[in-house]
Amino acid sequence: MDRSAEFGRWKAQSLSKADLSRKGSVDEDAVEVVELLNSREEFFTTSSCAGRILLLDGSTEGSGVQKQHCCWLLVTHKPCARDDVMAALKGATSEAVLKFEPFILHVQCRTLQDAQTLHSVAIDSGFRNSGITVGKRGKTMLAVRGTHGLEVPLTHKGKLMVTEEYIEFLLTIANQKMEENKRRIGRFYNYLQHALKRETISNSHSKIKERNNPLCTHKNRRSQGKAQGPSTTEDNGRELEDGDGLEISAALFLGDD
Amino acid sequence: MDRSAEFGRWKAQSLSKADLSRKGSVDEDAVEVVELLNSREEFFTTSSCAGRILLLDGSTEGSGVQKQHCCWLLVTHKPCARDDVMAALKGATSEAVLKFEPFILHVQCRTLQDAQTLHSVAIDSGFRNSGITVGKRGKTMLAVRGTHGLEVPLTHKGKLMVTEEYIEFLLTIANQKMEENKRRIGRFYNYLQHALKRETISNSHSKIKERNNPLCTHKNRRSQGKAQGPSTTEDNGRELEDGDGLEISAALFLGDD
Repeated sequence: MDRSAEFGRWKAQSLSKADLSRKGSVDEDAVEVVELLNSREEFFTTSSCAGRILLLDGSTEGSGVQKQHCCWLLVTHKPCARDDVMAALKGATSEAVLKFEPFILHVQCRTLQDAQTLHSVAIDSGFRNSGITVGKRGKTMLAVRGTHGLEVPLTHKGKLMVTEEYIEFLLTIANQKMEENKRRIGRFYNYLQHALKRETISNSHSKIKERNNPLCTHKNRRSQGKAQGPSTTEDNGRELEDGDGLEISAALFLGDD
Repeated sequence: MDRSAEFGRWKAQSLSKADLSRKGSVDEDAVEVVELLNSREEFFTTSSCAGRILLLDGSTEGSGVQKQHCCWLLVTHKPCARDDVMAALKGATSEAVLKFEPFILHVQCRTLQDAQTLHSVAIDSGFRNSGITVGKRGKTMLAVRGTHGLEVPLTHKGKLMVTEEYIEFLLTIANQKMEENKRRIGRFYNYLQHALKRETISNSHSKIKERNNPLCTHKNRRSQGKAQGPSTTEDNGRELEDGDGLEISAALFLGDD
């Protein structure tokens, strides 16, 4: 079976299976992106989370980092109020931590070039921790990951270590991050549409050319498919600013610390 | 110029340039890994940070997420004491945030297969947010990234929002994370040595075979180069557990939320 047919088989298999997530459905804010990707023959999504505020209660054992017996006290994909968190915190018996986790999306891609196109879109939209994984049997996956999280320890052995006023302050920040995250998902959707349109035009041009001259080479698909949106500058120089960072003199990255 | 010679030229250029980081040198805990990688013809590092505790003071503008005019009140690669943070906090005038940022490393790789080998080592060592980037001109980069951070807002308009007791509690956790991060760097170094040894043996076998039969195909280098260490389970199912996750039925990843 050729690569393209094999990919089609994987996709059909994957999309026919039940959604095994806790919620059992794709998050509202991620639906548009997920549907757009799954409508294209070169992609399918395998997991997604639009972004969420989480309150976890976990006993820190051994190193204090690996969390065993971790319990979810609260999870929401919508802005969150102080009273909800205060009520949920009543269930804390050990080390409760409030987290904001930004958008995450795993997309299986037909070819490395398809993954590169999507990677550019992700970086340009502000999801700077995105990256490609290539498996043993050639499965190519893009993980779209943001950098704008929060991770705030709140209780020690079940005892609240901060004031209610601090919880309110913290939720204002978490809710702002959720809004910004939503804007980035919107940007990702727009840039993706743009890139896929260019990709389609470029492919149909290539096919016409191929008919006229079967030996002509394909153009660099990624550079044509790249979204033209502005790149986003973040608050911290630890990551490459965008995919094109690779084209900048490596001296810029000789240590960032 | 062929790919291999071009890579050698990039490497020589990059390593001959001055270290432009604030500190001007590679962090102590990352030196071994950086030197091991740079001693190999298939890799060179372009930036690294062993992991650090940071206190930033930034005015939140507009969305409240993009931090402009951000000022570093404190940065340390060693465990940190309450008094140091309390003293540094006196300089806060707006929104001070304490962060723990784990190990990060950018490595340019000669081929995609070299990047895959390194990616496996990174995932197996617990750096689950690692990923490959392929640039327009074929530059292949692996970013090694951990997931175990902290990001805790401490002041609002310069006013401290938590108690000194909380700062002490927080630093205990940050220091534990720094220790765990150090263990992971050690694991990364060991797995890397192991993988490179297997790689070298596999390459020299291939060369002998090639001399006997110039048409024989290379074996799958990644599967041979893969470190055999146990994979690490994290506290949160949002990421693929390891590179081999790609080989697991995609149904497992049909939404994780």
